[in-house]
Amino acid sequence: MSVETISFARGAPSADILPKEAVRDAAAAALAEDWQKALSYGTGIGHPGLCQWVAERHGDLDAGQVMIANGSLEAGWMLFEHLLEPGDRVVVEQPTYDRTLLMLQRLGVELVPVPLEADGLDVGALEAALAEGPIKLAHIIPNFHNPAGCTLSAEKRVRIVELATEHDFWVFEDDPYRELPFEGEALETMLSMDKADRVIHASSFSKTVSPGVRVGYLAGPGAVISKLAKRANETYISPNMLAEAVVLELCSSGGLDRNIEFVKGALRDRRDALVEALGEQIPEAEFVVPGGGYFLWLDLTAGTDTAALLAEAKGEGVAFVAGPDFMIDGGENSLRLSFASVPPDRIPEGVARIARALERTRAGSPA
Amino acid sequence: MSVETISFARGAPSADILPKEAVRDAAAAALAEDWQKALSYGTGIGHPGLCQWVAERHGDLDAGQVMIANGSLEAGWMLFEHLLEPGDRVVVEQPTYDRTLLMLQRLGVELVPVPLEADGLDVGALEAALAEGPIKLAHIIPNFHNPAGCTLSAEKRVRIVELATEHDFWVFEDDPYRELPFEGEALETMLSMDKADRVIHASSFSKTVSPGVRVGYLAGPGAVISKLAKRANETYISPNMLAEAVVLELCSSGGLDRNIEFVKGALRDRRDALVEALGEQIPEAEFVVPGGGYFLWLDLTAGTDTAALLAEAKGEGVAFVAGPDFMIDGGENSLRLSFASVPPDRIPEGVARIARALERTRAGSPA
Repeated sequence: MSVETISFARGAPSADILPKEAVRDAAAAALAEDWQKALSYGTGIGHPGLCQWVAERHGDLDAGQVMIANGSLEAGWMLFEHLLEPGDRVVVEQPTYDRTLLMLQRLGVELVPVPLEADGLDVGALEAALAEGPIKLAHIIPNFHNPAGCTLSAEKRVRIVELATEHDFWVFEDDPYRELPFEGEALETMLSMDKADRVIHASSFSKTVSPGVRVGYLAGPGAVISKLAKRANETYISPNMLAEAVVLELCSSGGLDRNIEFVKGALRDRRDALVEALGEQIPEAEFVVPGGGYFLWLDLTAGTDTAALLAEAKGEGVAFVAGPDFMIDGGENSLRLSFASVPPDRIPEGVARIARALERTRAGSPA
Repeated sequence: MSVETISFARGAPSADILPKEAVRDAAAAALAEDWQKALSYGTGIGHPGLCQWVAERHGDLDAGQVMIANGSLEAGWMLFEHLLEPGDRVVVEQPTYDRTLLMLQRLGVELVPVPLEADGLDVGALEAALAEGPIKLAHIIPNFHNPAGCTLSAEKRVRIVELATEHDFWVFEDDPYRELPFEGEALETMLSMDKADRVIHASSFSKTVSPGVRVGYLAGPGAVISKLAKRANETYISPNMLAEAVVLELCSSGGLDRNIEFVKGALRDRRDALVEALGEQIPEAEFVVPGGGYFLWLDLTAGTDTAALLAEAKGEGVAFVAGPDFMIDGGENSLRLSFASVPPDRIPEGVARIARALERTRAGSPA
């Protein structure tokens, strides 16, 4: 009777693309050669070898500008707690990552919503927000946005860093998907453009190795990083040294880059399958075709209620996240699809189920 | 010219007693058989298999009463943040773990110091503190205390749980050393005596596996644990699933128990070497002989300044932590020695260096 649910809800890779052999080999090597660091307490910065590797990966950073943490979400939380006071005005993209909204609301800051365009943050709206009063921090997801799927253009990156310098606000460049472009190379980071110590960059190995390793990092001005590392030490002594030693081994052995190539191919196939299925089965859907990453953001005809659609979709055996979860207000006719979590051969059936649920929702409600 | 420092400062095992082969084997097995959990996001409770194992280890808990976290320090921090408001009266042992003092001070609670005796917390002083006003939480390290080395007697455990029930305060039973008794079995936990949902127990695999795995846990009333697990999920999605899968493999394969036997023997040898060296070289020293764990707390003659002694000791090539770090007030003539961090053949020389530093401090100061 019951069908297996096809879930586009979770921003996580399906198990078939987790690099189990590579991690197994890396763990064996790390515990043979780097066992002392892997098994001992570190300090708040995490594994110093991994700090060094990340600094080099970014091109021109010192290792002292990097701290490794137990995933970039908690690193961002520590950053928010360190930089923000209740009442501070904080720019959030709309839509944006739901967990970030939750954290900022917990801190009691004033959220200043700025809409997204096909090429990322609406910079005119940011300038208008700055004209209304000082901004303390702007949270920006530059590449293959979660949930919106869009990428911030190079011109806008330059302009945002200029504005941050001029108006003295922090840019939190939250960038876990940067290593996953489906064509060509990712654009330059705002961190690399920053000459005024206004940008703090966060990234993660959750998408390039796997979520279970819980290894992320912050990179930015050394003075901020060292304060955060002290706070990290007071909170958890050191992050997970075993997982970081394994990740470092993957990085330095070339296993990371091999896995990134594999994962990009797998995700591109899923993106292509999703775009094709949407075109065929939900032709009203409007979306930016994601150039990388995990997510596609779907706008349906005005008046659609995606929360009601989700309830109907569950009955059809398909899941996604309704738009309002990513919005301060609105988002009712939008939804997020994670294509990372569904193997490509299941995607057409998943989309067909959404299309059927959509039909049923509309059949059930007065026109 | 320079001699290698012998450090009794850090509460961590020396590298020679880290179980590198056992962890390597466990990592290989976990990534062969449990790779999907190891590499995927979990939830705020961590690895459900490890929750189950911990529940069974404690005898009569449900898995829903356990959450695994990235070390017990951060777990305790989440607990404090959840239960405490600024101004709440919180009992701390004197001396107590320095990081706990720091955390509680950060939260702005009122610290209520209760002295330790040779058999743990001075229960009469606790009763006096209760008579002065309500207590919200008592932080208690029952076994092989850090830094004091003492163990809370069975009678006092019963009485503290009675008082918590009667006066409605939380007992935070902070118990990372319980699995390391040098003779016989550890005493019953206060958690196991609690019928009124007043005790939350914390422990860790830092001392039984290794600190670098950063795996600890909380066990207590299911309602509190589920709230904390939700908060954990909001902060870091899930704790480190890779490390937890490795620890679970050690637990279920018997590797953990084999390592505990090995570590207890190694630590007992160090404790014995330290007690002998102190008797010979610093006969004025008074201390409780630790029945397990990592630490010995030394009281020197009244009037000794162990902060000044530490400065002198550094010149001699030996380190420890001076008493005041573990005290709200006082502790000037006391110090903490970690015997876990020094191989037994280095201990006599380390103590000789402290004795020389003590002599020089006294020679340099007027009588």
